[in-house]
Amino acid sequence: MPLSAPPAEQAKDSALYQEVLHFYARQMRSLDEGEVADWAGTFTEDGVFRANAHPQPQEGRAAILRGATEANRKLVEQNVQRRHWLGMLQVSRNPDGSLTAHTYAQIIATPQGGKAGLELSCSCEDLLVREDGRLLVRHRQVYRDDLPRS
Amino acid sequence: MPLSAPPAEQAKDSALYQEVLHFYARQMRSLDEGEVADWAGTFTEDGVFRANAHPQPQEGRAAILRGATEANRKLVEQNVQRRHWLGMLQVSRNPDGSLTAHTYAQIIATPQGGKAGLELSCSCEDLLVREDGRLLVRHRQVYRDDLPRS
Amino acid sequence: MPLSAPPAEQAKDSALYQEVLHFYARQMRSLDEGEVADWAGTFTEDGVFRANAHPQPQEGRAAILRGATEANRKLVEQNVQRRHWLGMLQVSRNPDGSLTAHTYAQIIATPQGGKAGLELSCSCEDLLVREDGRLLVRHRQVYRDDLPRS
Repeated sequence: MPLSAPPAEQAKDSALYQEVLHFYARQMRSLDEGEVADWAGTFTEDGVFRANAHPQPQEGRAAILRGATEANRKLVEQNVQRRHWLGMLQVSRNPDGSLTAHTYAQIIATPQGGKAGLELSCSCEDLLVREDGRLLVRHRQVYRDDLPRS
Repeated sequence: MPLSAPPAEQAKDSALYQEVLHFYARQMRSLDEGEVADWAGTFTEDGVFRANAHPQPQEGRAAILRGATEANRKLVEQNVQRRHWLGMLQVSRNPDGSLTAHTYAQIIATPQGGKAGLELSCSCEDLLVREDGRLLVRHRQVYRDDLPRS
Repeated sequence: MPLSAPPAEQAKDSALYQEVLHFYARQMRSLDEGEVADWAGTFTEDGVFRANAHPQPQEGRAAILRGATEANRKLVEQNVQRRHWLGMLQVSRNPDGSLTAHTYAQIIATPQGGKAGLELSCSCEDLLVREDGRLLVRHRQVYRDDLPRS
């Protein structure tokens, strides 16, 4: 098989892979820019956000919105710009049509007038579903690399 | 709509999204490798480079070339290897056929024999146009995260 | 040529570009997660791994496996989680059907209970081939930015 001709299945996956890349770029920028309603809107109504840094998950879009609002308030107070980079994306399809997406994450923080720094390195596992044509996160699990997995 | 079948429009966008990714990889590597003529050639003849770190924009390919030549001279003197990472790409089409592309940027600097470090975190907004089939930057606006936006 | 219609060749390249992105995500995660047999399996049987940090290349899958096993043992001992980010990918086709892929690399290290840090910045040049439909690395050359090229 010549390298120049990936199979047709691959071509379809290619569009999907790119769609997930694009989704994450929009999603994480909305969080970093403090557009917390847009951020919460990238989760399903019953979406869950778990992190090994938090004893309790955020369950439901309203809880995810409250969490982001509070986190954003602190960053504004501290005059810190955060940037969430997701990268090294792997996507696989589940039998029910949902997607599992694995990424690495860097959180970079820059205080106004100060020095940019790498705050955290994480890995992330998402369950993505499509509603009305748009991808949404139904379940996110974030693992900070500095903390035990569970 | 099954996840495995993004709409046809999406498939076309997929090729475009990938093209922009590839363009940035070539563009930023040319800067980092000191190929300043190649770098300047990724802007239109009347291309503009603005940054919230600089009071005056670089206007026109010749000015962009001079700016890069001077910056590169200093890096060679200091024996520092810089790497510009662009990521978290978002692309949208404008009515006139041009593209607006938003990215995050990390600038990593490594002195010869020394320690790699994150020098700057930025966000970047480009206006891209196609000339003779190739993408070019007509306008770039870089915002360092540590400085006021304007 | 409208921006919305990249040429058909581009569309094929798009699938290939995405395939390489996906390949690297899987490959580097297998290394970072300590799945050293999977890692070694992403090289051809006669694959070669060269780095300007090492006087001798690792030649052959068995040597690559031994190298990764030893490196992983040390990381487990030190309780350090490493993350290899490859980015800024450029891909070109060679006349014999193989691919040359250039990337930037960040190696991020996080000690358990400690602070994430950028350990190394590198650039990377791979020769990729397809065997039984899968991409494999036949030759990898890594250049640490802090060390002389040769």
